[in-house]
Amino acid sequence: MRPVTPSPSLPPTLRRETVDGVVLLTIDRPDALGAFHDDLWDGIGAALTQARGDDDVRCVVLTGTGRTFTAGQDLAEMAAPRQHDDGRDHGYRGFMPVLEEFDKPLVAAVNGMAVGIGTTLLPFCDVVLASTEARFKVPFMPLGVTTEAAGSLLLPERMGWQRAARMVFTASWLSAAEAQEAGLVLEVVEPDALVPSALELARTIAAMPLDSLVTTKRLMMAARGDAVRAARQREDAEFARMVGSAANAAALASFSKG
Amino acid sequence: MRPVTPSPSLPPTLRRETVDGVVLLTIDRPDALGAFHDDLWDGIGAALTQARGDDDVRCVVLTGTGRTFTAGQDLAEMAAPRQHDDGRDHGYRGFMPVLEEFDKPLVAAVNGMAVGIGTTLLPFCDVVLASTEARFKVPFMPLGVTTEAAGSLLLPERMGWQRAARMVFTASWLSAAEAQEAGLVLEVVEPDALVPSALELARTIAAMPLDSLVTTKRLMMAARGDAVRAARQREDAEFARMVGSAANAAALASFSKG
Amino acid sequence: MRPVTPSPSLPPTLRRETVDGVVLLTIDRPDALGAFHDDLWDGIGAALTQARGDDDVRCVVLTGTGRTFTAGQDLAEMAAPRQHDDGRDHGYRGFMPVLEEFDKPLVAAVNGMAVGIGTTLLPFCDVVLASTEARFKVPFMPLGVTTEAAGSLLLPERMGWQRAARMVFTASWLSAAEAQEAGLVLEVVEPDALVPSALELARTIAAMPLDSLVTTKRLMMAARGDAVRAARQREDAEFARMVGSAANAAALASFSKG
Repeated sequence: MRPVTPSPSLPPTLRRETVDGVVLLTIDRPDALGAFHDDLWDGIGAALTQARGDDDVRCVVLTGTGRTFTAGQDLAEMAAPRQHDDGRDHGYRGFMPVLEEFDKPLVAAVNGMAVGIGTTLLPFCDVVLASTEARFKVPFMPLGVTTEAAGSLLLPERMGWQRAARMVFTASWLSAAEAQEAGLVLEVVEPDALVPSALELARTIAAMPLDSLVTTKRLMMAARGDAVRAARQREDAEFARMVGSAANAAALASFSKG
Repeated sequence: MRPVTPSPSLPPTLRRETVDGVVLLTIDRPDALGAFHDDLWDGIGAALTQARGDDDVRCVVLTGTGRTFTAGQDLAEMAAPRQHDDGRDHGYRGFMPVLEEFDKPLVAAVNGMAVGIGTTLLPFCDVVLASTEARFKVPFMPLGVTTEAAGSLLLPERMGWQRAARMVFTASWLSAAEAQEAGLVLEVVEPDALVPSALELARTIAAMPLDSLVTTKRLMMAARGDAVRAARQREDAEFARMVGSAANAAALASFSKG
Repeated sequence: MRPVTPSPSLPPTLRRETVDGVVLLTIDRPDALGAFHDDLWDGIGAALTQARGDDDVRCVVLTGTGRTFTAGQDLAEMAAPRQHDDGRDHGYRGFMPVLEEFDKPLVAAVNGMAVGIGTTLLPFCDVVLASTEARFKVPFMPLGVTTEAAGSLLLPERMGWQRAARMVFTASWLSAAEAQEAGLVLEVVEPDALVPSALELARTIAAMPLDSLVTTKRLMMAARGDAVRAARQREDAEFARMVGSAANAAALASFSKG
């Protein structure tokens, strides 16, 4: 595996390596449990854009480090969206369109806790592998907000309506085995086998003709039409209304104490 | 649990209790195996409308009594739709739009036989628990009619196309275990544990902020767009054509004898 | 079971028998492993059209012979579409609209290898039974092409996105048990029990009123709207672009050698 000199667009919290047509992206922010912040969103977005434009890349693997995959969106930046100088959105809002249009196979290797966006990102991955130590939670209700990243559409699609509803409405944890039974995760492996298993799958995929992979991924995405983008945009509007509301402030205060 | 004095709009066949933000609705018509008749439809519709408008209610649980959840639509009223004085439909036709727009979490606790609409209502419930004694059947084919309550869309969505097709086309019974394997039911519990389990889940949900619950349920419903209503309306048109047809009359005659 | 004198429109590679309102179609081309060629497409299309128009037919069963269900589209005819004298398409392109509009219950009994279209046809079948000897593979990637028969929509619908993506992107084989776990197959039975089981199910269905079966199948198809046709047409356009391309030629050359 060839370590890649970080491009200026990649933050220190994101590692990038390549091998045999596969890009391995590793979220490396152990001090903040892999929480997403604007620079990390921007970094993953830049890495996906780079991978999309590079004909030598045929598959991308996303993983985390230590005990967490990602602890979700950094609460401090949740209520303060920023723009780049050219008007593009920083952070989540800038990232989602890149993810929604990413047209090469994408594999997730969930190594530990996947909270909030760490879980709602997973339905954008074509295959999700998880370590036995992975755990999954979407704490939108206790935080006084709602689903994001088209989770209102994609969690029911992946898990079935009932499991998605129970997970969202109760904000309960799923173990790796429960996530597999629910369809959120395809395979659960021992921690040491996680990244090797993901890379083995990715290299098998990356041995296929590029045009076939890209065309097929586009056709699969086209088959669900604009529903994903529309769901995410409905959510974003509600999220903006709810963040900073009295209920959200009370929920956050209670959450910090409790 | 606080028993509630029946409002004038609730028929004697429907009991209503409340506790900790949860409304428990119990179909209580043992003499008719819990069969739906216009007054019961109207009553459940009125109870859901009341629950929707009451900010102290955050989750509704629906269950039945004795050996049946509900035996389905009362055959005698099947072919004779009636209107309220103000033009609103009585019965099934008046009820369905209320159910389709109900925007708080809804839990079903299926205690016994769920026949026809007793099964096709379930995909509108966010979580369905069932007793080991529950059984499920949609006898539309032998009755010479077709699916109702958007079952043509929602049974395949919940159960997968193949299990839905087999259940509908053969009109066979599913046991509680089979319904769980098929995805129609999320959990199966002992009869004594059914309502307590449903209430425990409902109280966990009802502890969440109201705005988050309602917004999320609305987003989840919006994600499937108008497909549910459109499916139900297509079915209603066919149902109206088929009820009272020669094939239906022959099927009913054969059904009554057999 | 009554063997039917082949109509002029049925090729020698397709056998047709009827019993109790059920038509059993058997692909019988052992010398070519049941590969689809234009005459076979045309024959199955003609048989389905005949079954649709015959009120005595209420269910159709499709199976194969020997070790294969079907080895998929004949490669020699892949790149050379032909038209009938009246302008209708021969082969796959003429067949798909017939299949998409077939409005009676359709049961598949997969006896052996189901490759390419042998697998992508299955989501059009209401129930799929398989022999323990069945195996499933979609080799679109190594052939340098993409999905067909609306597989980009229907494989994820039947199998879930993750299992469909892995199967398509890696072109790996699924065993009968894996196909059942994935939701592509509903039941797996011993080879000797396959056709009898399919016929037993079909006869149960065929005992129901014709109007109920046809109306319900139409409602189920209407519930997914024009999405199936649209997905297939997007695929056809890409397929036409890719067949005969340098990547496809290289893939075919490599495939023939390997």
